[in-house]
Amino acid sequence: MRDVSVIGTGITKFGELWDKSLRQLGLETGLAAISDAGITSKDIDALYIGNMAAGSTLQQEHVSALIADYCGLADQNIPATRVEAASASGGLALRQAYMAIAGGFIDIAVVGGAEKMTDVSDSESSYAISMGSDEQWEAKAGATFASLHAMIAQSHMEKYGTTREQLSAVSSKNHYHASLNPMAQFPFAINPEAVSNSGIVSSPLRMLDCAPNSDGAAAVVLCATEKAKKMNKKSIKIIGSGQASDTLSLHHRDKLYRLPAIGIAAKRAFESCGKKAKDIDVIEIHDNYTISEIIALEEMGIFKEGEAAIKTLEGETKLGGKIPVNTSGGLKARGHAPGATGIAQVIEIVQQLRGDAGDRQVKNAKYGLAENHGGTAATAVVHILEAE
Amino acid sequence: MRDVSVIGTGITKFGELWDKSLRQLGLETGLAAISDAGITSKDIDALYIGNMAAGSTLQQEHVSALIADYCGLADQNIPATRVEAASASGGLALRQAYMAIAGGFIDIAVVGGAEKMTDVSDSESSYAISMGSDEQWEAKAGATFASLHAMIAQSHMEKYGTTREQLSAVSSKNHYHASLNPMAQFPFAINPEAVSNSGIVSSPLRMLDCAPNSDGAAAVVLCATEKAKKMNKKSIKIIGSGQASDTLSLHHRDKLYRLPAIGIAAKRAFESCGKKAKDIDVIEIHDNYTISEIIALEEMGIFKEGEAAIKTLEGETKLGGKIPVNTSGGLKARGHAPGATGIAQVIEIVQQLRGDAGDRQVKNAKYGLAENHGGTAATAVVHILEAE
Repeated sequence: MRDVSVIGTGITKFGELWDKSLRQLGLETGLAAISDAGITSKDIDALYIGNMAAGSTLQQEHVSALIADYCGLADQNIPATRVEAASASGGLALRQAYMAIAGGFIDIAVVGGAEKMTDVSDSESSYAISMGSDEQWEAKAGATFASLHAMIAQSHMEKYGTTREQLSAVSSKNHYHASLNPMAQFPFAINPEAVSNSGIVSSPLRMLDCAPNSDGAAAVVLCATEKAKKMNKKSIKIIGSGQASDTLSLHHRDKLYRLPAIGIAAKRAFESCGKKAKDIDVIEIHDNYTISEIIALEEMGIFKEGEAAIKTLEGETKLGGKIPVNTSGGLKARGHAPGATGIAQVIEIVQQLRGDAGDRQVKNAKYGLAENHGGTAATAVVHILEAE
Repeated sequence: MRDVSVIGTGITKFGELWDKSLRQLGLETGLAAISDAGITSKDIDALYIGNMAAGSTLQQEHVSALIADYCGLADQNIPATRVEAASASGGLALRQAYMAIAGGFIDIAVVGGAEKMTDVSDSESSYAISMGSDEQWEAKAGATFASLHAMIAQSHMEKYGTTREQLSAVSSKNHYHASLNPMAQFPFAINPEAVSNSGIVSSPLRMLDCAPNSDGAAAVVLCATEKAKKMNKKSIKIIGSGQASDTLSLHHRDKLYRLPAIGIAAKRAFESCGKKAKDIDVIEIHDNYTISEIIALEEMGIFKEGEAAIKTLEGETKLGGKIPVNTSGGLKARGHAPGATGIAQVIEIVQQLRGDAGDRQVKNAKYGLAENHGGTAATAVVHILEAE
């Protein structure tokens, strides 16, 4: 199999982008990514799109063809493929493109993630998100995504003694990082007390434990490394990729305080490149809720079980700490546009490994990891990248 | 790249399956396919799911994790990926699995397609289908799928003199084939006059020109050919795969009487295996409307432009004719469950190449082709298979 590199990136600010349609967001980030890569549309062999909810929020399926059309890529009849796995749609689309290049089918692919969540009411966008859980046994029974994660948080607190103060430290840390990221949806710091005193959404989770439902888009250009080298591109290599599933519904699981698919996906990604957790310098984690960041750090072996919350409170995951996590601001503060999130995470890692992360640069970052999951981690996908 | 073979198949009868849920359909066909392959779930490395409309008809996204869960595959944390491209979802899911095996990432994958279209009202299922066209410029403007294809048919009639009688011959021929297929949704013959006299849906298309919106599921087991040989499996090799896109909306196209993405996808598939149209012995075509079968035959070079309708009326595409097309009954008479259709087509080709097609067997069939498209062929995917 061939090596694959990221040679270009493009991203919008996430938020309530009422003046931009899905097709516009796709076009804007796609153009930005190929411009950053210094290529033209004629160089692109395939397009992959991560999108979760266009069917329910926009009454538009077949989003791959839509984006290809509006990017002018239908003129060259480009193979265009949409991948959907709830909030893991972006990461999973990236993995398909990665495999197509590594396998030798194509040389260059654009992978875009795009989502419009705020053109509908808050209840409709929450309902769209709930379609990533089990419709028969969870969503229709009234379990929202927040309430499912509240049960996970409660269970983790009971098992390990995780505290309100520790959860608040996750959100506060990610907001601090966002204050250094001009592209973040919420680019301002908040103190842990503000998190602890924000309104209850589903006990123990409060408003500032929860990521927003955002509009937004992100795109990367992937290229066979050997070709990127010939083109003299400034590139970041994807050295590992892993994917895993778990039961869709929480009631099928043994332990509510774990999200094992994240650990398995990470294990597979580490094995695919011969690296270990201790090699990683910077991490983007799918913190749709504060508790998710804590559990993901434990599942991936960054910290031991029951220790991630303690280490977070001690500052180890903050910029300047031992292993900075979510330097972009994470889903909580950079924003969370489901199909785009997995791509946005990889873009943050690429910026860090390029040394282009400005005020939030992790010094001497050589290896980065992006963890993206869907539902209550019924799908998890992990990519490991290396600075060249 | 490695060769890939189909080593097992499973399919439900398509129709109004009100007593079966999507998860049940997925489980039933998945088990049938692995049983046919003579493997166990432990042998499976990855699951791919083609599904178009579960978000809008069932309020369920993240279908890959749902099916993995109910098939017991979440126990082994199997990578599970959903692909969506309207009615081409099944064929496109197959292509992703094919590339993952050919590229050396995995050895064995199950590819399932599943759809529930009839648990909602006819207007709701038609609306779900319209999400495969351009929502802003077609669906919301009132253009149904039938009306878009009616414009295509009208244009083809004006350009080539295609007649009502010729269109009716497509439907009648496919129904005749279905009468020989016990798994067909409509396993009975109809004469061409019945088609010509059926109610107008959107002029010139009549009810019996149009495929149904069906429930149904289909699954195949793909295996690296070298491994299949070691396992002594009776297998059919996938020798070619091609994919192409076109503009999502019809008004962006130069010629309404053509569906060029089908021809480009076929060209790419033929080039990938060094075969030509004249080598093919049996074909499954995406006849969502009778006109689609005519145009696809011309795009793929089976007949010259403007000749497919004439040859169809002469019986060349009927069982016993020069090149039998849609021996399963096609979308019109086997049924059309969008996500499952592309897989069902490949299953028909596999049965033909295995010599297992019973009364509808094409004698000495060595090479078969399956053409699957989404929307008004804004996505097209073609696979070529060879008897070993």
